[in-house]
Amino acid sequence: MNETPHTTELRSEPVTVIGLGLMGQALAAAFLAAGHPTTVWNRSSGKAAELVAAGAVLAPSPDAAVRAGSLVVVCLSDAAAVHDVLGPHRDALAGRTLVNLTSGTSEEARELTALTTSYLDGAIMAVPEVIGRPEAFLLFSGEREAFDRHRAALQRLGTATYFGEDPGLAALYDVALLGLMWGTLNAFLHGAALLGSAKVDASAFAPFATRWVGSVTEFITAYAGQIDRGAYPPEDATVETHLATMKYLVRESAAAGIDTDWPARIQALAERALAAGHEGTSYASLIEVFRGRA
Amino acid sequence: MNETPHTTELRSEPVTVIGLGLMGQALAAAFLAAGHPTTVWNRSSGKAAELVAAGAVLAPSPDAAVRAGSLVVVCLSDAAAVHDVLGPHRDALAGRTLVNLTSGTSEEARELTALTTSYLDGAIMAVPEVIGRPEAFLLFSGEREAFDRHRAALQRLGTATYFGEDPGLAALYDVALLGLMWGTLNAFLHGAALLGSAKVDASAFAPFATRWVGSVTEFITAYAGQIDRGAYPPEDATVETHLATMKYLVRESAAAGIDTDWPARIQALAERALAAGHEGTSYASLIEVFRGRA
Ligand SMILES: NC(=O)c1ccc[n+]([C@@H]2O[C@H](COP(=O)([O-])OP(=O)(O)OC[C@H]3O[C@@H](n4cnc5c(N)ncnc54)[C@H](OP(=O)(O)O)[C@@H]3O)[C@@H](O)[C@H]2O)c1
Ligand SMILES: NC(=O)c1ccc[n+]([C@@H]2O[C@H](COP(=O)([O-])OP(=O)(O)OC[C@H]3O[C@@H](n4cnc5c(N)ncnc54)[C@H](OP(=O)(O)O)[C@@H]3O)[C@@H](O)[C@H]2O)c1
Repeated sequence: MNETPHTTELRSEPVTVIGLGLMGQALAAAFLAAGHPTTVWNRSSGKAAELVAAGAVLAPSPDAAVRAGSLVVVCLSDAAAVHDVLGPHRDALAGRTLVNLTSGTSEEARELTALTTSYLDGAIMAVPEVIGRPEAFLLFSGEREAFDRHRAALQRLGTATYFGEDPGLAALYDVALLGLMWGTLNAFLHGAALLGSAKVDASAFAPFATRWVGSVTEFITAYAGQIDRGAYPPEDATVETHLATMKYLVRESAAAGIDTDWPARIQALAERALAAGHEGTSYASLIEVFRGRA
Repeated sequence: MNETPHTTELRSEPVTVIGLGLMGQALAAAFLAAGHPTTVWNRSSGKAAELVAAGAVLAPSPDAAVRAGSLVVVCLSDAAAVHDVLGPHRDALAGRTLVNLTSGTSEEARELTALTTSYLDGAIMAVPEVIGRPEAFLLFSGEREAFDRHRAALQRLGTATYFGEDPGLAALYDVALLGLMWGTLNAFLHGAALLGSAKVDASAFAPFATRWVGSVTEFITAYAGQIDRGAYPPEDATVETHLATMKYLVRESAAAGIDTDWPARIQALAERALAAGHEGTSYASLIEVFRGRA
């Protein structure tokens, strides 16, 4: 992320940031800090003051903003706003790369490709405060050549990863990873509630939870291979074995007077896998349930 | 886990293993391999042959088996079997430490303390094949002095952790950690199904999933502190922000034709937190939902 001599050329690439909400301001600030000539535009005035003081140019219109950059980054509330602001400026966008960092669905990302020939879609897995640091993860998909050409500039924002030509991939990875977070956090919070019923502090549980989640990633890696091979040998345990222990989780939750719905749902998913004929297979066979085939 | 000179004395502690199912055989084999004089008993005959060949003594009755060890490990199908086998032998158990490694609920563990004055309950987070190696995690709770006295022998089985005097704690930690595994795995499998709809291999998703789960453990640590302090400041994001993105996960799932029930449930939990007044708080406030207070 640091400025190094060999990036002098790329550092000077002129960039435009459209949308100066919390995130847009952080993006523009990161480009400025890295030495990019940076032009900004926002619908309502006033949000550019700090950036202008730091060296940004405030464009008088979206059209002028677009024309000032070879890399045009847009970060608004939603896809409809991007169409509103950029729809009338396709001529200005021609020959430039548009990078849309507005959250949205993969379908919205695919629709936005109509705005220009060189389109990248991105998802930001970070809060504005960490933009510009390697801990900020940015997911990109769309035109590969555009990603390669602007990689250095995009890396100014954080750790930038490219997933493929389908512009919807960044949005899909984004929700898939967030879903992984919610599933893990819900399970942790449910476990903390359960242990809390026996007067165990969440902070006492957390280190074991964290270490155990590390072991779970080994199952993830093994199961991914099984899924891609389409076979689920029970190398560790069968779905039946899991189901037997799930019932303990339901019973413990009921005895503790906490939510039984979350563990009951976990149990129901395993039961659906068994009902679909996945006895004697590994837990990875539950993907068939999520695919809607079981 | 290796034999080192200073453990000579402890290594010679006579141990008894009652129950020679898949797990009981692995436990006895680990004790034998570590040099413990090992006595075994099993309801049906025949299962002791290999262990006897490796140096174990096969006791003619549960009573004789119990009297042969200062540490008596029992590993049967369920708590009822433990009562059946050991209930008639309280006299023999007096002065010995009973370690119950049979899976069960925390309530069952508490009830089994009636069998003897020196009781430890344990949960095994490992398959028989890894017993005796550090990757085998064994959770213990019950009489602290007994754990300290027999720690060296128990460490022969794997990495042994003590959680507290309440004998039910090992069983509670066990299901809480397994619940964490199921929540994480389900979310991974759902995400893999979603990305699979865009022709992304599960093995392409896995490394990102694994790295991201590592970041999620940082939220776990932060949220644990918030839970123990009883305050949920939105240091990273609010429940409302999470909810907005959850809706994308539901929409993407529907568009991909995969299961929408899992993400809808995730969304419903966040909505319940908001309905209970947790706007503007961090995701940790969902523990109130799991506690049944929201
Ligand atoms: N903040 C985060 O932590 C975070 C993290 C990851 C991703 N994101 C994503 O980044 C994007 C922006 O988030 P944010 O936090 O910067 O939001 P924000 O602070 O609410 O800013 C929204 C921006 O969109 C503009 N806008 C909305 N509708 C418009 C329209 N019809 N025409 C022109 N401009 C319009 C607003 O302009 P005005 O100033 O004129 O209202 C403002 O610049 C969102 O998609 C969000 O999901 C944010
Ligand atoms: N295997 C694993 O991967 C694993 C992992 C973690 C925890 N565990 C736990 O370890 C415990 C044992 O599992 P396992 O795999 O060893 O099971 P298993 O192979 O089915 O063995 C069950 C044992 O219990 C005995 N038994 C059952 N009912 C009995 C009764 N009424 N009286 C006397 N003996 C009785 C059986 O004796 P007979 O031989 O006479 O039938 C056998 O020795 C379970 O609680 C299990 O949840 C197992």
